[in-house]
Amino acid sequence: MKVPKSLISALRKEQVFLLATHISPDGDALGSCLALAEALESLGKKVHIFERDPVPERYRFMPGQKKCKSTLGNLLKIDPLLILLDCNSPERAALEGYTFNKSVVIDHHETESPFGDIRWIERAAAATGLMVFYLIEALHIRITKSMATNIYTAIAVDTGTFRYSNTSSDVLRVSAELVEAGAHPGDISEHLYERWKKNRFDLLNLCLGTLEIRGAIALMHITRDMFEMTGTVEADTENFANVPRTIESVVISVLIRETDNGRWKVSMRSKGQANVAKIAAFYGGGGHRNAAGFRIKTDLPTLKMKLFAAGNSVLPKT
Amino acid sequence: MKVPKSLISALRKEQVFLLATHISPDGDALGSCLALAEALESLGKKVHIFERDPVPERYRFMPGQKKCKSTLGNLLKIDPLLILLDCNSPERAALEGYTFNKSVVIDHHETESPFGDIRWIERAAAATGLMVFYLIEALHIRITKSMATNIYTAIAVDTGTFRYSNTSSDVLRVSAELVEAGAHPGDISEHLYERWKKNRFDLLNLCLGTLEIRGAIALMHITRDMFEMTGTVEADTENFANVPRTIESVVISVLIRETDNGRWKVSMRSKGQANVAKIAAFYGGGGHRNAAGFRIKTDLPTLKMKLFAAGNSVLPKT
Repeated sequence: MKVPKSLISALRKEQVFLLATHISPDGDALGSCLALAEALESLGKKVHIFERDPVPERYRFMPGQKKCKSTLGNLLKIDPLLILLDCNSPERAALEGYTFNKSVVIDHHETESPFGDIRWIERAAAATGLMVFYLIEALHIRITKSMATNIYTAIAVDTGTFRYSNTSSDVLRVSAELVEAGAHPGDISEHLYERWKKNRFDLLNLCLGTLEIRGAIALMHITRDMFEMTGTVEADTENFANVPRTIESVVISVLIRETDNGRWKVSMRSKGQANVAKIAAFYGGGGHRNAAGFRIKTDLPTLKMKLFAAGNSVLPKT
Repeated sequence: MKVPKSLISALRKEQVFLLATHISPDGDALGSCLALAEALESLGKKVHIFERDPVPERYRFMPGQKKCKSTLGNLLKIDPLLILLDCNSPERAALEGYTFNKSVVIDHHETESPFGDIRWIERAAAATGLMVFYLIEALHIRITKSMATNIYTAIAVDTGTFRYSNTSSDVLRVSAELVEAGAHPGDISEHLYERWKKNRFDLLNLCLGTLEIRGAIALMHITRDMFEMTGTVEADTENFANVPRTIESVVISVLIRETDNGRWKVSMRSKGQANVAKIAAFYGGGGHRNAAGFRIKTDLPTLKMKLFAAGNSVLPKT
């Protein structure tokens, strides 16, 4: 992975930075921003981190997370260099409508927009955090314990703690260096996976009770009643859609959540060649081959019938 | 980690080897045996792997696993060098009663017995597989793709795929080398975590339905009826005891399984300083601070009452 020289020069030259990432931030988004912010601050630069949404509770252990602000204040008056991390358009960062004279994009997603004076996009990188690691190294800045914790968390979240196929030897080697710099894998994993509130666990239990499997397709649903009964919200369902993938015979796993009376949000996960993005596209949604979703207004039995049929249509022919 | 010179000499000198590991083998036990067997065979040595129990289905993807034999044949007549891996007494490997003229122990567990002419025990090693990696390196043997897959699996299983606090920088650096040698983290993780039979998932669902939490203690149980209803066996409950640890407030998580009418097997898991080995010892069982168990003949309500009380007695004082 090669850090663009123009990026290094820009970071050295500029004095005021606006770091921003996507809305509904995950560990990679936050870890990348926080680590780069600390690195730039260590060079005496002024750094502002903008994030429209609150930092989810499970990420509040990340060092420096309180630096994330949901407002810009008077910052734009002093003409900062905007750096978008883990996303590549101002819209994804809830920064549409503003004008930026200087901008950088550092991202590992497929390109959505041509935004950015300097664009560093590595689609093969497992996490934006990995790119930030190489960037900080290229700036000859020592990785501190807090930077290491933030970057390790970024990598852990985007590789499913080294379980996904994007776990390259690079990912593991950089993670080894982060542990040497002070990151604690056990502590980080405990924060990520063992800090569920009881009501979230109750919701998963209720949700699993609705599991219906036909052939290679698994459906589960959560109604407004189930959210209310357990005192949970939609953010508590993160990763629920993946749980039935544990079953060998399940190729497509679908979680259906009621957003309003008669309105549903559908999250689909698949293994291998089964392309759920096709289903999402048909219903006006989006996503990737193995993770996609859409919203729909209908009744639950009809929706389930449609999903079983649509799922079958995208299963690989055997 | 320093490989003993006497071990290297012995492996170079001897021609016939008996590799053995503990009963109820896990990924570390199997991966260590299989990788070392392949390495020795590459030197032209004759290698026999003894394992009393069948290789569990989830580990049957491991290259060379069919080499594991549950008999010794006439092997002892030709005076092999016994190498115990991931255990340190012949009893743990179901080899009690035999006489071995030459023996080696390679293990990362606390020492149980003084067995072994050459003893290489590294309590700080996350996995025996890690020791085998360094041993193969010290023998100047190239790590093949199949060795890499076996050692990676060994390390993955014993570190919870890099989630436990034993995930050192060494663990990650060696894993990076194993990926370079051909191990596929995504494929291995899929075999380890996404190949459940539907009935195992149903059993977990039933089991979660029995979850009872009082304070920091979570209890779940599985009766003979539940095994029969789902067509599952005790081996299907591996890791179930850990599931309630996901809940932040849960410090001790207990799984109770009915073995016979009125007989129960109790598995306890804890976080941090809560020492469940004390409870196990009181009831004549065994284990470590954070993972221990025992067997008991009683009725379920009495057992649960005792477990809540015993659990409270070992919680750290706050």
